[in-house]
Amino acid sequence: MAEPVITLTTDFGLRSPYAAAMKGVILGINPQARVIDLSHSIPPQDLRQAAFFLRHAVPYFPADVIHVVVVDPGVGTERALLYVKTGSHQLLVPDNGCWTVLADQARESLTVIRLTQLAYWRCPVSATFHGRDILAPAAAHLSLGVDPARLGVVVTEWVGLETASLAWNAEGMRGEVVFVDDFGNLITNIPAEFLVRLATPPKVVQVGERMVRLSWVETYGQAGPGTVVGLVGSGGTFEIAVAQGNAARQLAADMGTPVLVVVEG
Amino acid sequence: MAEPVITLTTDFGLRSPYAAAMKGVILGINPQARVIDLSHSIPPQDLRQAAFFLRHAVPYFPADVIHVVVVDPGVGTERALLYVKTGSHQLLVPDNGCWTVLADQARESLTVIRLTQLAYWRCPVSATFHGRDILAPAAAHLSLGVDPARLGVVVTEWVGLETASLAWNAEGMRGEVVFVDDFGNLITNIPAEFLVRLATPPKVVQVGERMVRLSWVETYGQAGPGTVVGLVGSGGTFEIAVAQGNAARQLAADMGTPVLVVVEG
Amino acid sequence: MAEPVITLTTDFGLRSPYAAAMKGVILGINPQARVIDLSHSIPPQDLRQAAFFLRHAVPYFPADVIHVVVVDPGVGTERALLYVKTGSHQLLVPDNGCWTVLADQARESLTVIRLTQLAYWRCPVSATFHGRDILAPAAAHLSLGVDPARLGVVVTEWVGLETASLAWNAEGMRGEVVFVDDFGNLITNIPAEFLVRLATPPKVVQVGERMVRLSWVETYGQAGPGTVVGLVGSGGTFEIAVAQGNAARQLAADMGTPVLVVVEG
Repeated sequence: MAEPVITLTTDFGLRSPYAAAMKGVILGINPQARVIDLSHSIPPQDLRQAAFFLRHAVPYFPADVIHVVVVDPGVGTERALLYVKTGSHQLLVPDNGCWTVLADQARESLTVIRLTQLAYWRCPVSATFHGRDILAPAAAHLSLGVDPARLGVVVTEWVGLETASLAWNAEGMRGEVVFVDDFGNLITNIPAEFLVRLATPPKVVQVGERMVRLSWVETYGQAGPGTVVGLVGSGGTFEIAVAQGNAARQLAADMGTPVLVVVEG
Repeated sequence: MAEPVITLTTDFGLRSPYAAAMKGVILGINPQARVIDLSHSIPPQDLRQAAFFLRHAVPYFPADVIHVVVVDPGVGTERALLYVKTGSHQLLVPDNGCWTVLADQARESLTVIRLTQLAYWRCPVSATFHGRDILAPAAAHLSLGVDPARLGVVVTEWVGLETASLAWNAEGMRGEVVFVDDFGNLITNIPAEFLVRLATPPKVVQVGERMVRLSWVETYGQAGPGTVVGLVGSGGTFEIAVAQGNAARQLAADMGTPVLVVVEG
Repeated sequence: MAEPVITLTTDFGLRSPYAAAMKGVILGINPQARVIDLSHSIPPQDLRQAAFFLRHAVPYFPADVIHVVVVDPGVGTERALLYVKTGSHQLLVPDNGCWTVLADQARESLTVIRLTQLAYWRCPVSATFHGRDILAPAAAHLSLGVDPARLGVVVTEWVGLETASLAWNAEGMRGEVVFVDDFGNLITNIPAEFLVRLATPPKVVQVGERMVRLSWVETYGQAGPGTVVGLVGSGGTFEIAVAQGNAARQLAADMGTPVLVVVEG
């Protein structure tokens, strides 16, 4: 049988010993667990970026994997820590909404448990590092076969996350840049389903204050170098790129920049 | 039985093939070994940062894990390479003092062996990459069950590391910033034991040249945004943070900045 | 028996969910596979840097490891995706030449297969993320024991990569900086074999426009701080360093900077 897998997604950065400490705690409880880094470079305390990351990483994993997420601006306050099972995915995560994007497709099969059972925590618990002292040990115990129900109490309310704005009006579909990847591609929250319903692909898009003419392509390489292109990205939303270039730089755009897909008469 | 675990902590950075080469060497000798990255982003040749990292990462790991550390400004000189067993922790590390913080709690159970047995090294050994050619193969052989005593000769002297200054005087406790994490929190070397002995929590701290009034909290979230707070950090020392902000930027502090906890009355 | 190992080398960076998605896809097909990160910090779409990385990482791995490489400026165009077996090394890689450095030593035992069998791909295949949708699943199927011949058709032509220039003339050996590591060391493409044939070690080197006097050493630590030194690096080529300093900064050199080893008399 395959060994249990625990993934880590944090905003700890790479110089800090925090992620290493979590790995040590996990292996101390379950030496068989395999720990896989997803990212430790979520921008500090940026819940929206954490949500985007989880939305585009977790669904590709098989069932039984346990995803530990530590982007936790409220550490040490009264905010809860949760075990979440949504569809086939399991997460251990602070109650700050960054995981709720994963529940949209699976409301019917959602279990949320507030972690209360100190027996599965490190002792003592520090006030500022619940990732190491609560979430990591809880994940390790789960990976040993502990029933999630034993970790705490089922809850039916949790914190939501204000999602990026998305609205349809007379001019077209208005959304925003929700991620800029290392290639400078602008990933928006405008769904492919909207674009495929258009009679013709969009030719003009407003990025921030700027009106931009774009070539509609299926992939980056279909246009000449420097051309601004529009396409459906690998995550299923509208994406703006510059062939062999950097759209974020060229269009002076960043996360949060409003994007309007102009629909012609 | 769980597979043997080897961790890597280096200053190689992420673009270089050096850490990858070490992983290949380890797997070539022991395909069962599990290699876990702790960090490859220790600042280049910064032994104090390496020491801080090890101090706050290694103790969380279970016994039997082998920690390979390659922060090695003296590579290729006469400096020794060591196998260290301190308490339940095993390290393979250059003789430069970065590991000695781990020995403070465990002097009684300390074994240090200078690596001399070429049979456990790659051949030929390059003059500039002992991590790949000596430490990685030694770790892999250990993970196969080789007795550490066969790697070389027991030594009773090794290089120390000048630790950050810490002194008590009429004004209070004077230490320094020993780490700035990715949140901008200032972690000092002033121990929690000192703080808990005070009649009242400190209200004023001097950071560099600057006198700073602070609110004493148990965790970041207990003060309003922008407030400078003092607390005991997750590593057990005095830490200065700014609630929902960045203390390093706001107080113009960095590693090495002197910190004085002012004691009143 | 050891579990199958799949390594990942990409230019995705650390903030993006792309590498995480690939890990999920692999584990979904083969939960036993062990996924090892080599680097996700290859400079975006930089094939030469990818080639340098592979050249100095892959040869250290044992046979049977599967190396997935996603530096893919041509994603979605007609460029092929390849399975390559060169000597004992297996790669899954876009047909852009970044792997061909590994074939130089092993032309006799080279198998190249163009991936055509959709049965081993995710469905549907996105136009912009073949790493996730084709290479990762192909690697996972291989790790389950699928015969590479079933992935596609053998090809005998592939894209090459223009390598860095290297020429011998009256003045000496002219090459270039092919990598600058995190220590600022300048790694050139001038082979050690050339240097050892010289009557005396080189004393002067031209780096860009600058004539530099250097001390020939075997390792960084043999010269006083700030001294410019020349040596044979751990990858077997001529390397310029500054003892306890940063040669790239001190000599204003970067990747691609021409280097002339001046041969006297």
